[in-house]
Amino acid sequence: MSSKPIVPLIEYEAASEEVRAVYDDIMRTRNVDWINNFWKVLAHDPALLKRTWETLRDVMAPGALDPLVKEMIYIAVSATNGCEYCTYSHTASARAKGMSQAELMELLAVVGMANETNRLANALRPPVDEKFQPRD
Amino acid sequence: MSSKPIVPLIEYEAASEEVRAVYDDIMRTRNVDWINNFWKVLAHDPALLKRTWETLRDVMAPGALDPLVKEMIYIAVSATNGCEYCTYSHTASARAKGMSQAELMELLAVVGMANETNRLANALRPPVDEKFQPRD
Amino acid sequence: MSSKPIVPLIEYEAASEEVRAVYDDIMRTRNVDWINNFWKVLAHDPALLKRTWETLRDVMAPGALDPLVKEMIYIAVSATNGCEYCTYSHTASARAKGMSQAELMELLAVVGMANETNRLANALRPPVDEKFQPRD
Amino acid sequence: MSSKPIVPLIEYEAASEEVRAVYDDIMRTRNVDWINNFWKVLAHDPALLKRTWETLRDVMAPGALDPLVKEMIYIAVSATNGCEYCTYSHTASARAKGMSQAELMELLAVVGMANETNRLANALRPPVDEKFQPRD
Amino acid sequence: MSSKPIVPLIEYEAASEEVRAVYDDIMRTRNVDWINNFWKVLAHDPALLKRTWETLRDVMAPGALDPLVKEMIYIAVSATNGCEYCTYSHTASARAKGMSQAELMELLAVVGMANETNRLANALRPPVDEKFQPRD
Amino acid sequence: MSSKPIVPLIEYEAASEEVRAVYDDIMRTRNVDWINNFWKVLAHDPALLKRTWETLRDVMAPGALDPLVKEMIYIAVSATNGCEYCTYSHTASARAKGMSQAELMELLAVVGMANETNRLANALRPPVDEKFQPRD
Repeated sequence: MSSKPIVPLIEYEAASEEVRAVYDDIMRTRNVDWINNFWKVLAHDPALLKRTWETLRDVMAPGALDPLVKEMIYIAVSATNGCEYCTYSHTASARAKGMSQAELMELLAVVGMANETNRLANALRPPVDEKFQPRD
Repeated sequence: MSSKPIVPLIEYEAASEEVRAVYDDIMRTRNVDWINNFWKVLAHDPALLKRTWETLRDVMAPGALDPLVKEMIYIAVSATNGCEYCTYSHTASARAKGMSQAELMELLAVVGMANETNRLANALRPPVDEKFQPRD
Repeated sequence: MSSKPIVPLIEYEAASEEVRAVYDDIMRTRNVDWINNFWKVLAHDPALLKRTWETLRDVMAPGALDPLVKEMIYIAVSATNGCEYCTYSHTASARAKGMSQAELMELLAVVGMANETNRLANALRPPVDEKFQPRD
Repeated sequence: MSSKPIVPLIEYEAASEEVRAVYDDIMRTRNVDWINNFWKVLAHDPALLKRTWETLRDVMAPGALDPLVKEMIYIAVSATNGCEYCTYSHTASARAKGMSQAELMELLAVVGMANETNRLANALRPPVDEKFQPRD
Repeated sequence: MSSKPIVPLIEYEAASEEVRAVYDDIMRTRNVDWINNFWKVLAHDPALLKRTWETLRDVMAPGALDPLVKEMIYIAVSATNGCEYCTYSHTASARAKGMSQAELMELLAVVGMANETNRLANALRPPVDEKFQPRD
Repeated sequence: MSSKPIVPLIEYEAASEEVRAVYDDIMRTRNVDWINNFWKVLAHDPALLKRTWETLRDVMAPGALDPLVKEMIYIAVSATNGCEYCTYSHTASARAKGMSQAELMELLAVVGMANETNRLANALRPPVDEKFQPRD
């Protein structure tokens, strides 16, 4: 038997006006007609829902970095932390933005490598090289 | 007093031929005339040094993804894991490959956000949406 | 198909006297008539079972901190580490001790925020302020 | 030699008006006359600075949970993640809000215990008990 | 409903010659007639598959450490990171190499303890003792 | 400037009788005449000090596993978590118990590899193979 979510999903029909306003903005911004489950559990705290959505919307929008690059960074962090939900949702988002299978696999090669060398450095504790010190 | 590395740094002059061959390839590939401390501690196991360097060299080379994007993914993982050495070395590499301050800050906004929502999902356990399931 | 536990559950009926003594203490202390699965897998090492239970019982008892606050700290750590079993069991315990939905959601807002700013600090490496140094 | 921050600290005098407005709000809200280094590195991205500060200010304010409890949750997460800066800054904040040495030590006993049992559960994979399933 | 893998499994029959060569080496080295799912997802990037397999094969072979000790170290890391797949696969491998139930439980007692004291040290920040500094 | 510990070190001379009894047992058990800093910070909570020491003493003693193997497992976990203090102290302990440089480097090759493949599995989510399911 698979586990239930820790708090029940709040569907659009049962949502307060405050929550519906966020759901509406999510669907409008993404140009979709459904809400994914992550928001339906956050909706138990409308202020947290609103703040998290608005931050995500702004942070993931085009800026200095390409939106697809940002989705790949999200996958990198989610794989490192082992977050199942986030891995599925952000891999789906990255694919919707055009990520190819080859790009996904190459991304993961980097993620694996970084997780490996992070531990070699943690265990052997080489001093940070003078040449790597940031310049003012 | 700052701590010493767990194993002493093996400098070029004191290195075996096997180690020197790797050091030479590092300098040639990167077009620099010095070796950073990470390799000098790995050199205590020449096979590990060689394998780690060759994998890094191949994984970080241009491929489906841009080398700068790969360095940014490395920073994302290193910040998530809290690896000090790797944060300094890969931020320096990313800057050498042209990362601007604005790109760094935007990258970190994504990394911070992903670490936040990873935990909201871990704690509330929403089921993975049917629409996020990979298509065969 | 859902996975089996790594070691079979040891039920009360099949348990050794040493294990039963711990199970009895768990039920008496918690005033319940059942044993949760975590203890049934630990029971493969009666010394580990006994030590872990007794430490948990003592650490989670009223002291300088309120038992409900302690359960919330447990949730914070379990969400940060992504431990599914611990998230379910300690959310259930916290609710049994009176945690409201509003308290859970506010707790998670803090957990999310802390996980975010931890990585911003890890990535940007600001020096610890002199004013934050502990006073003797 | 101790490492420099990855980006230089932006002091009040050198800050843009946008950044100063945030610095002013930090000092006013906390009723102090200085800015800690975390904000001085975030200031390289004024939007990230503003959003992070405002979220922190709102999340850590009195609500369903006591502000001291929230600081302790912050310490729990920071210790779990091994964030040095956050450990110093939030321990200092918790002490400023009245945390005693006994409360700190008891908090850490819970954090240590949770990190231990999280891994025992991760390794042995007991199924989540039916009785721990959330009720609708 | 249980989730699908992020990329479909590549079975032997459908695999390219390059992938089959790796699959053949896995079966020959391990003296088995089947391929586990980890390799079947990696096979989407034949270079990553080949490199990861060859590194694993070499790293886990007898050397300065006993192969069973290496499998136990793998379990320790996988439990610390909470990787479900790796926990199942490496516990199975360790058992195939002779790990007893008593050895598994004792291993996990150490893993739990290390995860606990790691956080006590992270939170209290004792200086590294002069006597623990490596000698040149 | 290096940071101070979060709580001052409690030296033997200034310690309570309860704390001295633990310090004495540490020195007797390890056959040394000094106390390392980890215990001197834990001493602010004598019950935590006593429980942590006694558990460590019992868990790390000879049993189903060799004491040196246990120290190596401790290093594996500490490197994975990035705990600086624990890396130095347990590497020193392992060396005192006879760990060679070759054994350390080989241990770290496994730790690095496990951290890498843990993330490849987390990101690609292969189902646990039927053949890896534990047998009752």
